[in-house]
Amino acid sequence: MTHSTDRLILLPADEYTLRLERLQQAIAPVADGVLVTDNANLYWLTGRVFAGYAYVPAQGTPLYGLRRCAHLAGDGVAAERKIEDFAARVAAACPAASRLALEMDAATYAAVERALAAFAAQWPAVQPVSATAALRSVRAVKTPAQLRLMRLSGERHEAVYRRIPRLYAPGMTDYELQVEIERASRLEGCLGQFRVAGSEMELFMGSILTGDNADAPSPYDFAMGGAGMDPSLPVGADGSVIRPGSTVMVDMNGDFTGYMTDMTRTFRLGSIAPEAERAHELSRAICRRLAEMGRPGTQARDMYHAALSMASEAGLENYFMGHRQHAGFVGHGLGIEINEAPVIAPRSRDVLQEGMCIALEPKFVIPGTGAVGIENTYVVRASGPMECITGAPEEIIDLEK
Amino acid sequence: MTHSTDRLILLPADEYTLRLERLQQAIAPVADGVLVTDNANLYWLTGRVFAGYAYVPAQGTPLYGLRRCAHLAGDGVAAERKIEDFAARVAAACPAASRLALEMDAATYAAVERALAAFAAQWPAVQPVSATAALRSVRAVKTPAQLRLMRLSGERHEAVYRRIPRLYAPGMTDYELQVEIERASRLEGCLGQFRVAGSEMELFMGSILTGDNADAPSPYDFAMGGAGMDPSLPVGADGSVIRPGSTVMVDMNGDFTGYMTDMTRTFRLGSIAPEAERAHELSRAICRRLAEMGRPGTQARDMYHAALSMASEAGLENYFMGHRQHAGFVGHGLGIEINEAPVIAPRSRDVLQEGMCIALEPKFVIPGTGAVGIENTYVVRASGPMECITGAPEEIIDLEK
Repeated sequence: MTHSTDRLILLPADEYTLRLERLQQAIAPVADGVLVTDNANLYWLTGRVFAGYAYVPAQGTPLYGLRRCAHLAGDGVAAERKIEDFAARVAAACPAASRLALEMDAATYAAVERALAAFAAQWPAVQPVSATAALRSVRAVKTPAQLRLMRLSGERHEAVYRRIPRLYAPGMTDYELQVEIERASRLEGCLGQFRVAGSEMELFMGSILTGDNADAPSPYDFAMGGAGMDPSLPVGADGSVIRPGSTVMVDMNGDFTGYMTDMTRTFRLGSIAPEAERAHELSRAICRRLAEMGRPGTQARDMYHAALSMASEAGLENYFMGHRQHAGFVGHGLGIEINEAPVIAPRSRDVLQEGMCIALEPKFVIPGTGAVGIENTYVVRASGPMECITGAPEEIIDLEK
Repeated sequence: MTHSTDRLILLPADEYTLRLERLQQAIAPVADGVLVTDNANLYWLTGRVFAGYAYVPAQGTPLYGLRRCAHLAGDGVAAERKIEDFAARVAAACPAASRLALEMDAATYAAVERALAAFAAQWPAVQPVSATAALRSVRAVKTPAQLRLMRLSGERHEAVYRRIPRLYAPGMTDYELQVEIERASRLEGCLGQFRVAGSEMELFMGSILTGDNADAPSPYDFAMGGAGMDPSLPVGADGSVIRPGSTVMVDMNGDFTGYMTDMTRTFRLGSIAPEAERAHELSRAICRRLAEMGRPGTQARDMYHAALSMASEAGLENYFMGHRQHAGFVGHGLGIEINEAPVIAPRSRDVLQEGMCIALEPKFVIPGTGAVGIENTYVVRASGPMECITGAPEEIIDLEK
């Protein structure tokens, strides 16, 4: 089985045109063209990850340069190992740009400097501008074809989660249970790759937290922490045995299609503290409330404040989004990467639009018990509440019956 | 089990001093101080990944700023969410820098620009220089403590590889075998995280190649390709059934300690073409020859040319390091990341030093059969040939007996 063809552009023609038009509309107000080199952005634009460059003018036809896989073909495609050669071809084919948009939050300083110098050699008056806002905004709103891939990931993700109670064996550590879930995920087709925008967050396949390890602060900007197995990757499972009276929070990779869903479910061994049960039900209620609020035009920050208010009214704000260390958000956009727009946070300026995909994860850390709550991935619809695409049962599930 | 303590610096005092001195010696000729923010560099410097900043002056005591995990403590450590606050404390404590070294090949353009502006607000005359060469050079030469972690990864890596024939079941695809090796690796303690310098290369846990999928070009700069399971991650296993007469090349993640070894072994189902057997033995011979050459003072490019000459003399140069697409190197430094210095390539200017860790992977792709050859991780010693730290049997191993 191979998915590769010799066409560089793997998207169907109408889908490619749709994405290109959206990008050009977003770029036109700020720049005369955009240079795209980041894997996630190239995948969004073409339907494949490749090594090279795309130049998308604000009007007109894109050009592509290949650093490897020179057999790939298409209009405007050529093999160019050096960006200087690509820039020369762009300058010969496109009107001179006075403002060039560059991936200043995705590419390294050295890469941007080199690209800028390559284009300045062709267009001496060119000025750099950031492509970040335009790319984030177009990637946040998914097309129907992208939503199909998101839903497919959600279905497979759910199939894995339904199997979790049968993967548990008495005496297991959090880490051992995680390894069995990883295997089940991979056999269900999980690609494993966990794409995060920026270079600061790292995670391998997901996070399993049991007992008080859920309260160990992590350096990474995820909703929950965990000490991890090693100081080189201080997040998630720490090798604790799963003990009676504890919860096990499972938040594992949902990248089955190149587009990832995010889903968390909570399991328990034996009976747990009533306050933990109550916090879990509150998490479900917050999700229902936010899903109802989440319509085109809704302010992301209003959703955050609604969630925080519900936690405060229940007297659970000290445990909301962590206990020793608190996460500063309750949800996030996702798709190709786990941290796309919008961000559901107190000072977010993001506004919901139809087609956005948002993971909501109102979680609580209850000392002595562990983490509770759920996470679902939702799609913002033209009208009505957001559509949940991660449908596994939401109640706390017994690992042993 | 938890490895975290409340000390930011997890390295023993003498080890920390040793690394700091090496970094300061490398920085002093080019800058008055270096700002470190990249996870891999912070881990190298302190023994843990954390979210924040380090400023290491060319002489004197480093300062650390924490963006998260504010409970961590130590000399010169403070919680500072913004780099502007950190820069102000650095300026109050350290002599003004006229040249500030920044991680221009690891940090994003936006992050470097912001850091530079923060320091320029304190030190108006400051000029940016690249920290890349200094950091690459100090990280390339491992300390005895780092070599212990490398050897420990090698031992565990070997234990997993010895189990591979028993993980195979008739009718398996490359992908299914990979999933079982992943599970065995994780149960042996593999952390999973596959750290690569730069943002362009992606790989989940490793690569399994069988038959002609070994000849599918990949966009990533690895030694071998493979179509992968999806165009969002076009490398490695593609779901092919492992067929009689084919090889299976296994090149899986060796990060068991934060320091990773790299090892490849070749398996076969039934008998394979004599030319493939011959190429495999040549790979072993190239490794022996290069291990013998690899002494302090050896030019990395001479090792590459020695390998290429042996392939050419055997009439196998068309299959050396790929067939449809050829990789441009035969080995690479490694440790915290898979692509450290030195690089064993035709135009490399790297020179071997005692304590360097180098993976050698002279591989061949034989059309109709698959990939053959081995990869080992070696340590450059003061005298004598390089020490191999990945000791699994090197011959082609039968998946079924």
